[in-house]
Amino acid sequence: MPAPYIHEIRVAWGDCDPARIAYTANIPAWALAAINGFWEAVLDGDGWYQMELDRGFGTPFVHMEMDFRAPITPRHRLLCAVRPQRLGSSSITFRVEGRQAGVLCFESLFVCVFITAGSLEKRSVPEIVRARVTPLLPAD
Amino acid sequence: MPAPYIHEIRVAWGDCDPARIAYTANIPAWALAAINGFWEAVLDGDGWYQMELDRGFGTPFVHMEMDFRAPITPRHRLLCAVRPQRLGSSSITFRVEGRQAGVLCFESLFVCVFITAGSLEKRSVPEIVRARVTPLLPAD
Amino acid sequence: MPAPYIHEIRVAWGDCDPARIAYTANIPAWALAAINGFWEAVLDGDGWYQMELDRGFGTPFVHMEMDFRAPITPRHRLLCAVRPQRLGSSSITFRVEGRQAGVLCFESLFVCVFITAGSLEKRSVPEIVRARVTPLLPAD
Amino acid sequence: MPAPYIHEIRVAWGDCDPARIAYTANIPAWALAAINGFWEAVLDGDGWYQMELDRGFGTPFVHMEMDFRAPITPRHRLLCAVRPQRLGSSSITFRVEGRQAGVLCFESLFVCVFITAGSLEKRSVPEIVRARVTPLLPAD
Repeated sequence: MPAPYIHEIRVAWGDCDPARIAYTANIPAWALAAINGFWEAVLDGDGWYQMELDRGFGTPFVHMEMDFRAPITPRHRLLCAVRPQRLGSSSITFRVEGRQAGVLCFESLFVCVFITAGSLEKRSVPEIVRARVTPLLPAD
Repeated sequence: MPAPYIHEIRVAWGDCDPARIAYTANIPAWALAAINGFWEAVLDGDGWYQMELDRGFGTPFVHMEMDFRAPITPRHRLLCAVRPQRLGSSSITFRVEGRQAGVLCFESLFVCVFITAGSLEKRSVPEIVRARVTPLLPAD
Repeated sequence: MPAPYIHEIRVAWGDCDPARIAYTANIPAWALAAINGFWEAVLDGDGWYQMELDRGFGTPFVHMEMDFRAPITPRHRLLCAVRPQRLGSSSITFRVEGRQAGVLCFESLFVCVFITAGSLEKRSVPEIVRARVTPLLPAD
Repeated sequence: MPAPYIHEIRVAWGDCDPARIAYTANIPAWALAAINGFWEAVLDGDGWYQMELDRGFGTPFVHMEMDFRAPITPRHRLLCAVRPQRLGSSSITFRVEGRQAGVLCFESLFVCVFITAGSLEKRSVPEIVRARVTPLLPAD
């Protein structure tokens, strides 16, 4: 199993609600930031912005699911591990797990489809994505 | 089937990304705002804030899943329909659907557990919640 | 002095920090939402999104200043009063005041310049803006 | 003049609006994140969260002003330079400047007051703050 991409989030005061833990709606936002970081790591520094504007494709989300396992606080950095799980003909599935000080805080799964930039038309997985992501998929 | 609670969101410029549609991470945040609005409607104006600070209980999220069906833009208000789906002994499940101009934009499901405020200890569903929410559950 | 445009904000749990009051960074975001609402009121429902995409001009911010007078909580709606203060040859200045239950929570001032959409080139105030906003300026 | 604390922000797709630049309301949020980072650097890893919960004081904002000099995009990291400017008897003033690839994007000034945690009562500057911040003030 290849090592995941690890994305560090600085959780802070303003991310927390009066229960003194991160407000739930911040957590999907952090998982998305981590997936964008995965693309930067895989595509020579290019995240969704450069993907859409320079490379001519986009990857909108069609599905997400998240399980919240433990509260998140500013007492530790939040480490989000991103693993591509499956590469279809025109879609990609990610697993994202968030941990603080070794404790699993959330597990999640996201499905994105590939489109031509500036449209909502599905397209096949771009060659560079297939080349770079295939080695990162689970072995079986 | 009882009528759902409808929560209106004003989608605006700053909610959109360079693809000119709402950025994905805003959508779970809106669904949560709609669930908070449901509580305000059901509990005499009290949302999560008063629930926790005045009524002594909280309802943290343990699970969410969302399917994104159509892009969301500022051209119409986003109407989020919130329906309690199931009331367990110490949990509640919501369905939230978002529509713009009659078009289904997202479908989603959220599970929350009841806790004693200021702790993470599960507790049974508060009586007032059971009394107010039971009539809103699906008939079957 | 013409009546201001009033924009209502539903402050909620997730907007508050562990001090149980709205996190400061949400407040400029609400003032901006109120200014966008002012444009919708003045331009037949068109906010920044339609301004840029349909009407061909934009109004980026060049300056803001805010004084925070009282904490904001979810116990009352936040009413933001927006008043255009000055219309220059290619700029507009707004005053935005936020109140909860009659208490002044913040006072602020924002300056925007008019540009041609899709560029950063300054342009003169569009005719429709001058026609609609001039009657709303302070009398002096 | 002591070197400022530098806080790095990863600007991304979701921070940008349809004009393809960072939405204005994100910029004060980043400046605040940078100030929180300054406190972490100065107080042995403690930001506002630990300040309030562990050290018994808070620093709410009473004033901010920002000048936006150049658009911010995801093409470069945003480096926010934080400098304490003045330490009063119960207040602190910060200058925060944001730069991308050497270009000044914003200049800003923030004033916070010291309070006893859990109240809104002003208090004098805590000793540890005075000891750690005084050497970082401008020389004159």
